[in-house]
Amino acid sequence: MNNETICSISTAAGQGAISIIRISGADAIIICEKLFLSHKGDQLLRKKSQQVALGNIHYKNDIIDEVLITVFKSPKSYTGENMVEISCHGSTYIQSKIIQTLIKSGCRIAKKGEFTLRAFLNGKLDLSQAEGVANLISSENSQAHDLAMKQMRGGFSNEIKILRDKFIKFASLIELELDFSQEDVEFANRKDLINLIHKIKSKISILIESFQLGNAIKNGIPITIVGHPNSGKSTLLNHVINEERAIVSDIMGTTRDVIEESITLNGYKFRFIDTAGLRETNNKIEKIGISKTHQKILQSAFIIYMIDKTNFNQNKIETEIIKIQEKLSSKQSLIIVANKSDVNNNTISFSKLKNCNIIDISAKNGNGVKKLLNTILSQIEKWQTLTNSIIVINQRHFESLKNTMKSIQDVEKGLKLNLSGELLSIDIKNCLHNLGEITGEITNDNLLDSIFKDFCIGK
Amino acid sequence: MNNETICSISTAAGQGAISIIRISGADAIIICEKLFLSHKGDQLLRKKSQQVALGNIHYKNDIIDEVLITVFKSPKSYTGENMVEISCHGSTYIQSKIIQTLIKSGCRIAKKGEFTLRAFLNGKLDLSQAEGVANLISSENSQAHDLAMKQMRGGFSNEIKILRDKFIKFASLIELELDFSQEDVEFANRKDLINLIHKIKSKISILIESFQLGNAIKNGIPITIVGHPNSGKSTLLNHVINEERAIVSDIMGTTRDVIEESITLNGYKFRFIDTAGLRETNNKIEKIGISKTHQKILQSAFIIYMIDKTNFNQNKIETEIIKIQEKLSSKQSLIIVANKSDVNNNTISFSKLKNCNIIDISAKNGNGVKKLLNTILSQIEKWQTLTNSIIVINQRHFESLKNTMKSIQDVEKGLKLNLSGELLSIDIKNCLHNLGEITGEITNDNLLDSIFKDFCIGK
Repeated sequence: MNNETICSISTAAGQGAISIIRISGADAIIICEKLFLSHKGDQLLRKKSQQVALGNIHYKNDIIDEVLITVFKSPKSYTGENMVEISCHGSTYIQSKIIQTLIKSGCRIAKKGEFTLRAFLNGKLDLSQAEGVANLISSENSQAHDLAMKQMRGGFSNEIKILRDKFIKFASLIELELDFSQEDVEFANRKDLINLIHKIKSKISILIESFQLGNAIKNGIPITIVGHPNSGKSTLLNHVINEERAIVSDIMGTTRDVIEESITLNGYKFRFIDTAGLRETNNKIEKIGISKTHQKILQSAFIIYMIDKTNFNQNKIETEIIKIQEKLSSKQSLIIVANKSDVNNNTISFSKLKNCNIIDISAKNGNGVKKLLNTILSQIEKWQTLTNSIIVINQRHFESLKNTMKSIQDVEKGLKLNLSGELLSIDIKNCLHNLGEITGEITNDNLLDSIFKDFCIGK
Repeated sequence: MNNETICSISTAAGQGAISIIRISGADAIIICEKLFLSHKGDQLLRKKSQQVALGNIHYKNDIIDEVLITVFKSPKSYTGENMVEISCHGSTYIQSKIIQTLIKSGCRIAKKGEFTLRAFLNGKLDLSQAEGVANLISSENSQAHDLAMKQMRGGFSNEIKILRDKFIKFASLIELELDFSQEDVEFANRKDLINLIHKIKSKISILIESFQLGNAIKNGIPITIVGHPNSGKSTLLNHVINEERAIVSDIMGTTRDVIEESITLNGYKFRFIDTAGLRETNNKIEKIGISKTHQKILQSAFIIYMIDKTNFNQNKIETEIIKIQEKLSSKQSLIIVANKSDVNNNTISFSKLKNCNIIDISAKNGNGVKKLLNTILSQIEKWQTLTNSIIVINQRHFESLKNTMKSIQDVEKGLKLNLSGELLSIDIKNCLHNLGEITGEITNDNLLDSIFKDFCIGK
């Protein structure tokens, strides 16, 4: 256990009715005892764990505030150490004065995430769960919240544990073969090994694939709206976000920059991106806008291609859509929208386009917009079902899983090349190492530093 | 007791590591019981007051968060009612989700200051103490904090009580005279009554006078820097606040607007106000600036008049300073500062100016600036000693005290005019009424509304 006693304001910055200051470490209770005078004359050291006392925090002769103090005795606390929570009046002056007093009394300011780091070091949480705490605090919508809760409560760690168990089973088979390699005993034939590897690979690849969704849920699902100038892209964006954020006008090329707006639908955060119209232009600034549009297409989960039903060239547009389709990965969805149905009621159809579902809308009066949004939502829910509800949301976990995949592919290659068990087991150990980094069974100071520096203060 | 159960986020707005949600009212514990599942299986209703339980907040089948819940049973709580404090993870999503869940379960959102209003209505605090809570939360420096603490802990209420006792003594004397008015008994001669009135008046006037300081401590003590263009006013301000906030240049008339900066020295908040130079000008915008300067002079506690030792007209400046002096009230202090001592080392003296203490400084290199600040601080501490440490900080109390003063002056006039006891006692009742409004012995809904609307949410 760390010898230093740490303290921090744990509530949001600024003035509030109440503020919470947390102290953790072996001396937490002793330090607070000296600064606290209970109205009832209770001693903190004699308090039971998880009991509250009312009294004054003072420094020398000055009363700083009347506070509630809760004592948590090791190991029954968040960090596993002795902890004290001071609930004080929420003036910025009182908050900083109490912190100053604690520092004068032997505490030091906690680093970002240090309470949770200590909880990890004291075995209260594994690393993935600790990261779940940070995700939980920063979650802004119900989907991100649900994923973080699952992670914090160990759902993701369990999944990794199952994977690790499979690897260990694999390793033991290799080990057996190794021990008896001189004899003609076959404990597991090569075919069974290959099968096991396929199972593991498919599990890892589902997790890796889930990251795109996990990341999108955490940071917002990017949807780019493209189409020819004046096809109504900005009007659709305005309709969706219900604000006059984009400048809408009849002059072609109005939207030169990329405009982004976030909205939350069914608990998902969406980032709608309005782009410059896709047209041939000699205007330098507009050219930059159009090139940005192409970038945004590559980064988006959904691309809404908007056609102006009152003014379009069938062949030209079909060619353009096919071009975009060719650029897209299997994870990206293209949705074709035929706008201005309020003016033109005809149905558009294309001959060469495959899997072509065209949604008629009027961005102006909102007809069809709901259908468009439902199409997007049902697509996302399909993804979520595919990923079997365990979704990777941390970049770090994603990297570790990709490394694991690389190692298991090495194992697979080795099997095919009939490599010796010794060599195979090196790659297996790599896999176990990479997975161990996710839950923190394998760790080092650099890794911990880089994880906890992204935490908020006081957690 | 109010039947409704209220809830509110009580920590500062936004994302933090932890957030506190408070619930108060008869049903507070019952409502939370239904939403809470303790890890240990404890029931909140069976918990002792001031004990903490760890568990999950859920709504129907969804777990919202893992939280700590503290139960406070009536009357042992801040409001005097049953109270629950939920300490949850500080994501904005979780905060609002828990509030939504509480509302669905029968709570309503607390109005500003409603917890403290209930504490007042349940006799936990008097009105002046309740206002002390609001002052405490908004205090940003040690002096404002100390005043608010004294007020919250009843120091100011006691002072008012002493005043009320004096009035009651006075009233009883009048009453006695009244009862025996037919006989020739003198229970208190007129001279004693007049003496008592003088004592009360002097006490009230000290309290009234203390408001200027109290208000200055609460909102910052205004110090205006004036002087001719290019005398170094902005340089001094920059030196004091140690920032390049004001634009300093050699071109006369650079500072056209009034610039204000706050700093805290020895626990006092000062508002330093840099002004346009005082000179004859035809520039319209500059004229507005100079007229603003004259306004600021009248609103300031201190006026620093700055002379450029390298370039000044002795007679002109002396006339100008005398003009300013004539405008000032006895509560305002004029400090004359001779700048650019780094260039010119001569001493300036004036023949017509009385009580003239000139401080030599160099705004450029900072020489003498400390002496200037110490002069200001010692003046303030002189004020504070005069006011005997009880200082009025609320505008409302100030108004009530002024009304009390008016009534007691009416009593004094009545005594001089030999008015009947009946008439005198009406004015005495007015005095008691005005003082009673401060502590809340006399109150009404409008008064309470106007007081608690200035509270922060969640308190």
